[in-house]
Amino acid sequence: MAKKKKEVKALKKKVSKLKSKLQDRSAAGDAAAAAPAKKKALAVSPLAPETFPDLPDIAGVRFASGAAGVRYAGRTDVMLAELAAGTTVAGVFTRSSTRSASVLDCQAKLGGDPAKGAAILVNSGNANAFTGKHGEDSVTALSTAVGKTLGVPAARVFTASTGVIGERLPHDRITDKLAELKDGLAGDGIAGAARAIMTTDTFPKGAMAEIEVAGTPVRIAGIAKGSGMIAPDMATMLVYIFTDADVAQPVLQRMTAQAADETFNCITVDGDTSTSDSVLVAATGKSGAKRIGDMRAAGARAFRAALTDVMRDLAHQVIRDGEGATKFVEVRVSGADTPADARKVALSIANSPLVKTAVAGEDPNWGRIVMAVGKSGAKADRDTLSIRFGDVLVAEKGWVAESYREEDGAAYMKQSDLVLDVDLGLGKGRATVWTCDLTDRYIAINADYRS
Amino acid sequence: MAKKKKEVKALKKKVSKLKSKLQDRSAAGDAAAAAPAKKKALAVSPLAPETFPDLPDIAGVRFASGAAGVRYAGRTDVMLAELAAGTTVAGVFTRSSTRSASVLDCQAKLGGDPAKGAAILVNSGNANAFTGKHGEDSVTALSTAVGKTLGVPAARVFTASTGVIGERLPHDRITDKLAELKDGLAGDGIAGAARAIMTTDTFPKGAMAEIEVAGTPVRIAGIAKGSGMIAPDMATMLVYIFTDADVAQPVLQRMTAQAADETFNCITVDGDTSTSDSVLVAATGKSGAKRIGDMRAAGARAFRAALTDVMRDLAHQVIRDGEGATKFVEVRVSGADTPADARKVALSIANSPLVKTAVAGEDPNWGRIVMAVGKSGAKADRDTLSIRFGDVLVAEKGWVAESYREEDGAAYMKQSDLVLDVDLGLGKGRATVWTCDLTDRYIAINADYRS
Repeated sequence: MAKKKKEVKALKKKVSKLKSKLQDRSAAGDAAAAAPAKKKALAVSPLAPETFPDLPDIAGVRFASGAAGVRYAGRTDVMLAELAAGTTVAGVFTRSSTRSASVLDCQAKLGGDPAKGAAILVNSGNANAFTGKHGEDSVTALSTAVGKTLGVPAARVFTASTGVIGERLPHDRITDKLAELKDGLAGDGIAGAARAIMTTDTFPKGAMAEIEVAGTPVRIAGIAKGSGMIAPDMATMLVYIFTDADVAQPVLQRMTAQAADETFNCITVDGDTSTSDSVLVAATGKSGAKRIGDMRAAGARAFRAALTDVMRDLAHQVIRDGEGATKFVEVRVSGADTPADARKVALSIANSPLVKTAVAGEDPNWGRIVMAVGKSGAKADRDTLSIRFGDVLVAEKGWVAESYREEDGAAYMKQSDLVLDVDLGLGKGRATVWTCDLTDRYIAINADYRS
Repeated sequence: MAKKKKEVKALKKKVSKLKSKLQDRSAAGDAAAAAPAKKKALAVSPLAPETFPDLPDIAGVRFASGAAGVRYAGRTDVMLAELAAGTTVAGVFTRSSTRSASVLDCQAKLGGDPAKGAAILVNSGNANAFTGKHGEDSVTALSTAVGKTLGVPAARVFTASTGVIGERLPHDRITDKLAELKDGLAGDGIAGAARAIMTTDTFPKGAMAEIEVAGTPVRIAGIAKGSGMIAPDMATMLVYIFTDADVAQPVLQRMTAQAADETFNCITVDGDTSTSDSVLVAATGKSGAKRIGDMRAAGARAFRAALTDVMRDLAHQVIRDGEGATKFVEVRVSGADTPADARKVALSIANSPLVKTAVAGEDPNWGRIVMAVGKSGAKADRDTLSIRFGDVLVAEKGWVAESYREEDGAAYMKQSDLVLDVDLGLGKGRATVWTCDLTDRYIAINADYRS
């Protein structure tokens, strides 16, 4: 009898996995369906990965997703993740001074007691932002209802909302769905969850890593949504990462902050920032691996590196789904007086509309890079500056390089993945940021958004 | 005989004025002709003023312009202004750390001895920027040649170059033209000068004021080029203002800096900054009005106000010629904790691609304004914030205003001149900046620029 039960369970899991894979194959169609009914379907980004990765199940996490009709009927718009007792949660959030009620709520809850489990609830369709006191009321209602449904403390329920801002969140539609979501919870539901949180995204985003902590395998699986800060109406970057490693909360928090700083804080689509951007990392400790109690514990370094890899992968996918993007651009700055100066220069280049339109036009316009270096506010010297497009030396010693031929630059710019490399020739400060080009599709998407 | 001479002179002047007017009428055609031969003609901006203003002659200033073939044959690409002995010169310049050789040279020359006159020489077609040591050589060659031709010290010759960067300026082509330019010098040549400095501009820009200093009339006339920081290849903001007032150089410098801070430093097309942006103000003292020797002198306040008016007018014209612009947008911020915070918020709104594309789409998308306030880094409180589109109250007390109807906002956004008004409700800090919308024309112009 017990054997039969086990077999059924295994078969059910297989069916679920197959269904999920099938869904992933038609991600393009899904993305189109997920777009607001009024909008034309968005074509999948030409920079999208070929397939959604095969993410490992994370012991101690179960997922469900469903259609609550938050804004549009028949659209998957809510995801629920149940986190086992003992799960520690860390997070980083938008620095916007107009951040949403759920962001403020999550920030307050991070350090809470993990003993009785936790949960994450995310809806799309409505951002529950700039809705006055109603925002807090909705967060409280959702946290309380999820807590009751799953038997976890409301103080351990982390919520996020993404979608139109300034409209009251009809949270009853979500709470009405919780029982159904609970029934659907499954260890292998992460691919469905990745799709449930999409808004203007043209493909679901996932990444994973498997490492060993003191000889025991641990897994990290993460999902993200966001195609740049696209519009507070409908887009925002949300990232959820799960691991079965056992990591003390303060350590997880520090690693999360460091890794986010090197990844999500180094990407920019248009320099705009959402009121709801959030990255949450949950560590269930169910791998059986030794606890990572401090930054020097066995496996801490490897875990931190793997966490950073997962975040970088997701961050790149966000850029690859940048609105209207046709080029993935890595901006590398070295030789700056300080790391902060390097970052200033890199972001100045990555956010410059002139650089981004030149990239869109496949124009090896190094003059615009000189301009962006100049306006950055960082220490720079025309005569020590050098610029490379990939391996092509373009400019040095205050002028165009003797070896440079315009046709080499032009040929390089035709690639879809580009490296713009600037050495300031002053010091040892380095920074790398990632961005995409600025095309007329970006304008079309954002100028017509609500009309 | 003397009478005859006078009559001839008067007639010549009349002919010159008529020619100039005729040219102004066909400014649109001129702008198209002035564009590089390889490019399609740029249509005149829909936000352009109807006509070039009738600028007064400024005693002590003579202008000439001509075609030196700096980059393209047959295109008016150089202007020369001769300034009478005693003319004081003040200026403000780009803060770019990669600023051009002529900018560095002008900065060094500002405080020089005015006794023996001065001159301004400007070329378009080549920016003489990022050309290594050749940049300085060209500036020296041009200053020396102009000095010899006009009999003024080379240390009183102010030059500027705008156009493609990274290519050596063929300054011989300009020095070869100097004798011809000298012969063409005329007191009423300012309209021609306004056209000679155009690059991607779709209309020539001029502004004027007439006031009294201690009972004596003085005149201010200014010209500008620039359609935003558009491309270091071909565009830059250059401004030349002339007055017959008598103003001590330190006073003129202080007034110029203050006025530029309230005008040119409050406009933004795309947040990018040229390596050559320059504003020069020359005061000949030939009006016979009392000298303005300090900031409290008779007429100082009126002169400063008039100078600011002229600069604001020119600054607005630069925005009205913003690449691809279809809307002129005034962003007013009040109630900030400090004036610096107000400016941060105003620039964050004015530079946000999401706000600018919403304006292009005539979308009353106040959510994007909340986003831009939030990301500005200034102190802000969702619950004290209010937003108005013109007189339409859109949002207040952390939510959309009770009285607000979407159709009112939508109707307002259809106007070509818009005021976006944000009150942070915290303090007394105020700032106003001006910008334009971001359209697919901007992308088309900048992505295809050099191809």
